[in-house]
Amino acid sequence: MRKYSAILGNLGNTKDRFCNGYKDNPSTLEMLKLAGSIDGISGIELVGTWDIRPDNVTAMKKAIADLGFECVSIIPDLFADKIWRSGSISSKDRKIRNKAIDYLRVMCGIAEAMHCKIINLWPGQDGYDYLFQGNYLKERAWLTDSIALLAGEFPHLQFALEYKVKEPRTHSYLARMADTLLTCLQTGKDNVGVTIDTGHAFMGGENVAESIVLAKQAGNKLFHMHFNDNYKSWDDDMIAGSIHSIEYIEMLYWLDECGYDGWLSMDQYPYREDAVGAISESIKWLKAFDEILMKNKKAIKAAIASGNAVETSALMRKIMLTDR
Amino acid sequence: MRKYSAILGNLGNTKDRFCNGYKDNPSTLEMLKLAGSIDGISGIELVGTWDIRPDNVTAMKKAIADLGFECVSIIPDLFADKIWRSGSISSKDRKIRNKAIDYLRVMCGIAEAMHCKIINLWPGQDGYDYLFQGNYLKERAWLTDSIALLAGEFPHLQFALEYKVKEPRTHSYLARMADTLLTCLQTGKDNVGVTIDTGHAFMGGENVAESIVLAKQAGNKLFHMHFNDNYKSWDDDMIAGSIHSIEYIEMLYWLDECGYDGWLSMDQYPYREDAVGAISESIKWLKAFDEILMKNKKAIKAAIASGNAVETSALMRKIMLTDR
Amino acid sequence: MRKYSAILGNLGNTKDRFCNGYKDNPSTLEMLKLAGSIDGISGIELVGTWDIRPDNVTAMKKAIADLGFECVSIIPDLFADKIWRSGSISSKDRKIRNKAIDYLRVMCGIAEAMHCKIINLWPGQDGYDYLFQGNYLKERAWLTDSIALLAGEFPHLQFALEYKVKEPRTHSYLARMADTLLTCLQTGKDNVGVTIDTGHAFMGGENVAESIVLAKQAGNKLFHMHFNDNYKSWDDDMIAGSIHSIEYIEMLYWLDECGYDGWLSMDQYPYREDAVGAISESIKWLKAFDEILMKNKKAIKAAIASGNAVETSALMRKIMLTDR
Amino acid sequence: MRKYSAILGNLGNTKDRFCNGYKDNPSTLEMLKLAGSIDGISGIELVGTWDIRPDNVTAMKKAIADLGFECVSIIPDLFADKIWRSGSISSKDRKIRNKAIDYLRVMCGIAEAMHCKIINLWPGQDGYDYLFQGNYLKERAWLTDSIALLAGEFPHLQFALEYKVKEPRTHSYLARMADTLLTCLQTGKDNVGVTIDTGHAFMGGENVAESIVLAKQAGNKLFHMHFNDNYKSWDDDMIAGSIHSIEYIEMLYWLDECGYDGWLSMDQYPYREDAVGAISESIKWLKAFDEILMKNKKAIKAAIASGNAVETSALMRKIMLTDR
Repeated sequence: MRKYSAILGNLGNTKDRFCNGYKDNPSTLEMLKLAGSIDGISGIELVGTWDIRPDNVTAMKKAIADLGFECVSIIPDLFADKIWRSGSISSKDRKIRNKAIDYLRVMCGIAEAMHCKIINLWPGQDGYDYLFQGNYLKERAWLTDSIALLAGEFPHLQFALEYKVKEPRTHSYLARMADTLLTCLQTGKDNVGVTIDTGHAFMGGENVAESIVLAKQAGNKLFHMHFNDNYKSWDDDMIAGSIHSIEYIEMLYWLDECGYDGWLSMDQYPYREDAVGAISESIKWLKAFDEILMKNKKAIKAAIASGNAVETSALMRKIMLTDR
Repeated sequence: MRKYSAILGNLGNTKDRFCNGYKDNPSTLEMLKLAGSIDGISGIELVGTWDIRPDNVTAMKKAIADLGFECVSIIPDLFADKIWRSGSISSKDRKIRNKAIDYLRVMCGIAEAMHCKIINLWPGQDGYDYLFQGNYLKERAWLTDSIALLAGEFPHLQFALEYKVKEPRTHSYLARMADTLLTCLQTGKDNVGVTIDTGHAFMGGENVAESIVLAKQAGNKLFHMHFNDNYKSWDDDMIAGSIHSIEYIEMLYWLDECGYDGWLSMDQYPYREDAVGAISESIKWLKAFDEILMKNKKAIKAAIASGNAVETSALMRKIMLTDR
Repeated sequence: MRKYSAILGNLGNTKDRFCNGYKDNPSTLEMLKLAGSIDGISGIELVGTWDIRPDNVTAMKKAIADLGFECVSIIPDLFADKIWRSGSISSKDRKIRNKAIDYLRVMCGIAEAMHCKIINLWPGQDGYDYLFQGNYLKERAWLTDSIALLAGEFPHLQFALEYKVKEPRTHSYLARMADTLLTCLQTGKDNVGVTIDTGHAFMGGENVAESIVLAKQAGNKLFHMHFNDNYKSWDDDMIAGSIHSIEYIEMLYWLDECGYDGWLSMDQYPYREDAVGAISESIKWLKAFDEILMKNKKAIKAAIASGNAVETSALMRKIMLTDR
Repeated sequence: MRKYSAILGNLGNTKDRFCNGYKDNPSTLEMLKLAGSIDGISGIELVGTWDIRPDNVTAMKKAIADLGFECVSIIPDLFADKIWRSGSISSKDRKIRNKAIDYLRVMCGIAEAMHCKIINLWPGQDGYDYLFQGNYLKERAWLTDSIALLAGEFPHLQFALEYKVKEPRTHSYLARMADTLLTCLQTGKDNVGVTIDTGHAFMGGENVAESIVLAKQAGNKLFHMHFNDNYKSWDDDMIAGSIHSIEYIEMLYWLDECGYDGWLSMDQYPYREDAVGAISESIKWLKAFDEILMKNKKAIKAAIASGNAVETSALMRKIMLTDR
């Protein structure tokens, strides 16, 4: 049984580097109310500092409970505060690294207080822009050690590392599924795993279905899923299903094969669109893909077993377009 | 009313730079027989020298007529003969340029003899590999002048220039729709236009639907269409529809809006697949997309007029997946 | 003799979609003062509304004159004001199109008052995000007509169209050199040409040297140049020369061959770097490349004439690295 | 002290999927003689079956010794024989997998007979083309198990897995450094590591310098290096240094930092160039980069430590272009 959720900020933030905001941004509580109007979701993810801070934990906990929602994850802000501009937990500056770890400790405490199981860790500023800028050996080790330290201190939380090949840095240290799995393994901690953002994976040239399997084979390391769509050259953060189709069906198939029972969370940037509408659309596409998948699982399994592309093409066409 | 065709060689050639052939290659006449078994096609394209030469014009003409097919285009071989390895009609060497023009004259004569209207010109070796290798000013001018010369000599033929951003050269002179249109305009000839190969366009980062409009706005310059699919990073030459869906529907919509009444020709490399099956699949996908399009044209037109992405997403999901 | 300039805002704006600003932003006049400290520049480009408005024309004109600088271009703001979020001069909404044209008229008037010859037109919001969202036929025509209208009204100004394949929209109507040249030609106006932003061109998969030649062959259409570097997958807006080397030398070579006598203007986003330092570095790289080029022009011309990649490789290595 | 080598077949094979050969192909012994004329190399890599077979081991061993060369690696042919067209050691067909393992055993035996330490394993046909074609769970496991089996049987050989994101399949199971390291780790064998082909890594969007560090951190897993250059969108197999510069210097720096003492082997496809000349050029570029690196190591180390992009840019410009 799928569980759908969304990231709260998707209902508000619409700025880019050129424009300060394509729409007026609602307040946190207004966004929560909007989230409540999205058909099919039962969970919400909160960005640290922006949505959730020590001073509003009680209020947010109540507001989320009032909606009948679960707090799915806390996403600590390691990307919006300019203090992390040259890295947070992998910064060349030990003071910055310690500050980042302290901030993460606060966020982990909040997660416990919210009965939230997942820390979705996206160290977006950890990486480098120029050649000969990063000390890859040291900075990658600092990144790993920082995560291992926190995972040891908060053994009941799951640290789901979200990777992305670039942006805001030209190179991120957590770039793709496989290098992120290496980082997971190097922490030596069972409670360190991975978040797939489908758009990040597309942008990094991944077949997401295969990335799901990579995480499985590295020891059940897929902890969380963010959904959106793009044209595969950039993190366009569009409605899931608005561009690609068969890829999503294949992802859902392999999520099942690998026994994934976590959340399907929507993560979009509806700069110019109605946010509730755009997020709802993603869920509706996923549900439609799932319905097709469920009806045809046996045939799909047989297609994979044969590997015959002509037969698989006929099957896909039939189940998507003509089998009415 | 759509007209479907295929390139004869797609039924045979399966080599790449590593392997001399993934399957045994049938003879030209065997390939023609196979083409006759593809449901829905009524035309065939022939590669110069390989499929059609002065010595077999009469035999091929009869064989094609026997199948009830039309000869849709001649594709002169400017790519497989090593004499063109550093360029054909844009070669730095005047003798090679003249040789290429002479060869093309022979091919144009054959087209006339076959009552074939289109010369599909893919100057695949015309371009450059290394920086500081091409004299862009001169070589681009030679390319244009050569085409203008031939178009003047054969005013009743249509010269459809097929573009492709790279391969076999790292840079082709005819790279994308817009630069190819500039070349068309610079020839000053009405009978010079463009072939879109959907996979070449994907690989070049184009939205094919918009490329169709570019050709329209430059003066009805879309002469021919080759169909296949890929992952947008390379010319994988796969079954059309096996990866992308909505893009093909959008293409077909704009083909109609722009009044295209030419052929939809299949151009694939079924290295490891049954060739008849793989080509047939492409046609079946296109027909399925077309059926959806025809049923929903009014709603689609309204969606474009509004530009509302949420509503368009709902429409696409309904017409593709749920409207049964 | 090269003329170097910079875009004023490069000395300040450092926000992206995640972070509101990686550094504190100086005021317009402070930025001008900083510009004055960049060694080697003698011109400045101003972004409309942000840097230059009817109310500060006199003050800016004086401030620029005091620095001994020229006002190289006005870049009207068609990208930062949310009113243009779904397009400006190609908007589906006639009122928005008219508003954009009126705004551009004001900016053209300012350019005349500043004795500034170039309107650098980057219609960054004109394009589309989703499939089936743009009416390519109508919207491209509106874009062309709007530019033609303005170019007719201000015949003494040069309208330099800046293209970029994507961002902030997933698809821009002015995407690459060749389609932008088609738009230029379709306006029917001699005073409509192109700005190359080297990073935009890289991101669009262009060899900039060849793009320079395309503009030449379409009728001396290269009006302006913006310089920066990136990894060719995105508009990273980095120090020109920090990643690529030979490509810049080739660009400079073909600028000379094509008789370009305009500005070499720096356009960067030094989010995390000292802005004066980063812009100065670009100029120093270009000057170093130019020095190499000037010393070896004859040998380079011979290398292009031969097209022999092995010899050209040896020449490049010698002039760049070993000829000391 | 660097050791340079080349792949024997680079001196001959010049076909692609369009053309059967851009040049006449010399015989194996003629190629060996050509290799002997490349200044600076002292080793050679042999492709299984094509260059080396049970029947010519003695002759080849002698011919290589006569040149004073070492046999650097054997590259078993898992890509040119059509029997592997749908996979070799990960084939869905157990008989094919066994056949591949048996073939590899023969090649390993030959390596031992040649006193050659490295089996360079490029399973180019192991992967998939279409969505829903690969059984990622099973096929990836078969791949890993096959390698583990061989590595166990031949403990004195080093199995260097060469990764490549695509071609000849649209998706390879060994795609990039990090997933290949996961495969290495999953074999549980110390004698399984990685070959970096710089062009494969570029094409996969990697910063090779960082990939070198990834291999180090996974346990000294970099066993071998293949050098060539490309435009980062495809495996163009060009002269190393003909396009990129600073990246190669950074690679060499991190090879040293990570204690790499293996071969720098040239792997190119000089389709249209003099092969000896093209391979020699690569070595000359690498030597020139190395000379610069050696002279400036202290300054480079300081630049990395500071991470200041403006200062690093000035340093790079000085050491590459102006410090004469």
